[in-house]
Amino acid sequence: MTAPRVVIVGAGFGGLSAARALRRADAEVLVIDRYNYHFFQPLLYQVASGLLDPAEIAHPVRSILRGQRNTDVRMDEVRGIDLHRQVVRCSTDIPYDYLIVAAGAVTNHFGNQDIAAHTMGLKGLSDALALRAHVLERFERATETTDERERRRLLTFVIAGAGPTGIEYAGALSELFVHLLPKDFPRLDFAPVRVVLIEGRNRVLETFHPRLGSMAAGVLRRRGVELVLGRTVTEADAAGITLDDGTRVDAATVIWTAGVCASPVGKQLTELPARFGRVPVRSTLQLPGHDEVQVIGDLAELEENGEPLPMLAPVAIQQGEHAAANVIAMSGGGAPTPFRYHDKGTMATVGRNYAVVQLGRIRVAGFVGWLMWLVVHLTYIISFRSKAVVLINWAWNYIFYDRPVRLITEVGPGRAAEQQTEEQR
Amino acid sequence: MTAPRVVIVGAGFGGLSAARALRRADAEVLVIDRYNYHFFQPLLYQVASGLLDPAEIAHPVRSILRGQRNTDVRMDEVRGIDLHRQVVRCSTDIPYDYLIVAAGAVTNHFGNQDIAAHTMGLKGLSDALALRAHVLERFERATETTDERERRRLLTFVIAGAGPTGIEYAGALSELFVHLLPKDFPRLDFAPVRVVLIEGRNRVLETFHPRLGSMAAGVLRRRGVELVLGRTVTEADAAGITLDDGTRVDAATVIWTAGVCASPVGKQLTELPARFGRVPVRSTLQLPGHDEVQVIGDLAELEENGEPLPMLAPVAIQQGEHAAANVIAMSGGGAPTPFRYHDKGTMATVGRNYAVVQLGRIRVAGFVGWLMWLVVHLTYIISFRSKAVVLINWAWNYIFYDRPVRLITEVGPGRAAEQQTEEQR
Repeated sequence: MTAPRVVIVGAGFGGLSAARALRRADAEVLVIDRYNYHFFQPLLYQVASGLLDPAEIAHPVRSILRGQRNTDVRMDEVRGIDLHRQVVRCSTDIPYDYLIVAAGAVTNHFGNQDIAAHTMGLKGLSDALALRAHVLERFERATETTDERERRRLLTFVIAGAGPTGIEYAGALSELFVHLLPKDFPRLDFAPVRVVLIEGRNRVLETFHPRLGSMAAGVLRRRGVELVLGRTVTEADAAGITLDDGTRVDAATVIWTAGVCASPVGKQLTELPARFGRVPVRSTLQLPGHDEVQVIGDLAELEENGEPLPMLAPVAIQQGEHAAANVIAMSGGGAPTPFRYHDKGTMATVGRNYAVVQLGRIRVAGFVGWLMWLVVHLTYIISFRSKAVVLINWAWNYIFYDRPVRLITEVGPGRAAEQQTEEQR
Repeated sequence: MTAPRVVIVGAGFGGLSAARALRRADAEVLVIDRYNYHFFQPLLYQVASGLLDPAEIAHPVRSILRGQRNTDVRMDEVRGIDLHRQVVRCSTDIPYDYLIVAAGAVTNHFGNQDIAAHTMGLKGLSDALALRAHVLERFERATETTDERERRRLLTFVIAGAGPTGIEYAGALSELFVHLLPKDFPRLDFAPVRVVLIEGRNRVLETFHPRLGSMAAGVLRRRGVELVLGRTVTEADAAGITLDDGTRVDAATVIWTAGVCASPVGKQLTELPARFGRVPVRSTLQLPGHDEVQVIGDLAELEENGEPLPMLAPVAIQQGEHAAANVIAMSGGGAPTPFRYHDKGTMATVGRNYAVVQLGRIRVAGFVGWLMWLVVHLTYIISFRSKAVVLINWAWNYIFYDRPVRLITEVGPGRAAEQQTEEQR
């Protein structure tokens, strides 16, 4: 009997942990991703705020899995999945005996085309680079315009959604605007600079304990972030946004972190998607009706204690390991086992010296939380080199309130966005 | 009498050294560049070969000049220069009392549209990023195709022009292909991988002493680079190139380092450009007929001992300082002095442990030359932080034959180029 072909779709936290857990398995493993790198999403906002360079949070999948003789990597776009013929359709058809789908999630604009067209996401590495260039360019433009109203618009930065990404980016931006950019733009009046964080619920960080949420909110407010709770963005255009109570905010930059939904790949796996397009799976992570297919991470909908598991890295990582174990069991004639999530807790930082941490009943906020955040994130980052560089940058930034990486290299996207705005105005 | 307005066009080596030399001058200095960063061009090939990240060789102009109270920076495109009204035309008109034009040079395709369309340059930061992504993507594609001929084409990398940029990039690529990528692509046969360096003259590095050139050529050959001397590229299409002797080379990647010419800004300054569109200037760097205008760096044509000064960083830097001194003299009622170039020598590396160095009569080649190259380049790089990071990367690369930065982040350009090739094939 030949080794089974195991195909893993997606090289995010889930797919990568599955691939690693299969390194000693008697199987032919193939990891497919449309990019050639795995990146550490929790630090993406630092790339977007010019603190880190892409290479410091991203690493080529091929070198991560280099040591694994039984594993191959393919940079390709998944065009479809034929569950009956058991092939993944890419530039060529790729047959599988076992399939692990870890395609993750994408930004959710809730079907609003205007919002999709006039806001920027913060989900991928290219989003972060485009955003970094865009934010810095607003300041360049602000120094040039003579129109007061336009300058205020250029210097207004709206973030929709106060989840971890939203509040972490809001904190990073306010730091950038308060401590650093005034030195770069000594002749620019920073009074009109605004960071507006809009959240539809009445609290920030809903996945955290309310006390932690309100503490984080307090810190953000003290750091100059305008919090607008209980309001949602209903319209977006080239000039700004409108809230559900009719409030108008003129802004040249609107960052959309108000929602994610499952990758479109999910449509290939089920006709009856769950909330946010997630794919309902059995407790064993298997796709109902297709024992050879497992779905993990943000893409999978699995309830535990009546609650769907959150879209978090630890869930994806643990499910990846579990899916690998199931494959090994099944290929050995055994049975897959149900998945149990071990809550490792969650944390979020609002910038210098302050983070909120929640480990089951233990809740920490402030400087200690920030140190915990620092340690955890540093240990997670894959390559040693990245760690060294990240440390240097963080130390540098911490001591000198400086951000090393403030290059508008993505002139393409940056300018494009700019021109687009011009035209539509 | 109010302080004169000194406008500097270009934040390259020339413009920046002029701005710095004016830091104590009683003048209103404005530096205009279409990018917000100054970058260290001599190391651009390392970004293009995935050894360094952009932020390690580039730094925002605003932070470089942050300390200078009399200096402002503007990120803008120069649309024209009105020598009579004494204004630089950008998004708004910028008047000047003294103008220093350091707009530099651009890639020269010698008017061949096909070559412009089907080759990639290595002059700007975006060129380097696009090239890095493109080269890595060729290998990804090569693993996917089943067509032997197409695979050979994908794995053939042509570099036109054996000046410093050409040979340094050829050396960097051959290292990348020999030491590193085989680990990332264990299932790919590397036998068909070719690096072809084409040079119209009968020698490489014509600005160096012939002995150094032939030594460098020897090392490149030993490292697997195919040198084609005395031949020029006459045609380029989506599938490859044709040489002047009719030789056909099928290649999916053609890098054009065969020539540069003065920035189009030069046309605003003279009706009678010199060779390569450079602007002839007086020995004082002044524009004939416009004493208040000085032209420096690659853009300026100035002969010394019957030879036009080379397009090199040291020339631009020294001319920048001299132009600043002239401005200070003139604004004080004095007279500008003629410029003399102090040859600091030139150097070029062909990769690990080997560089050729020429300091007047002193000529060094090999490991010692490489150490000198290392020291000089490290000292040149502007910010401390960059130095630290660059050191880490170089050490890492030197010890582990590894290249930290191998991300295909520019999926945009990369894919675009790809699709273009597809269509045109």
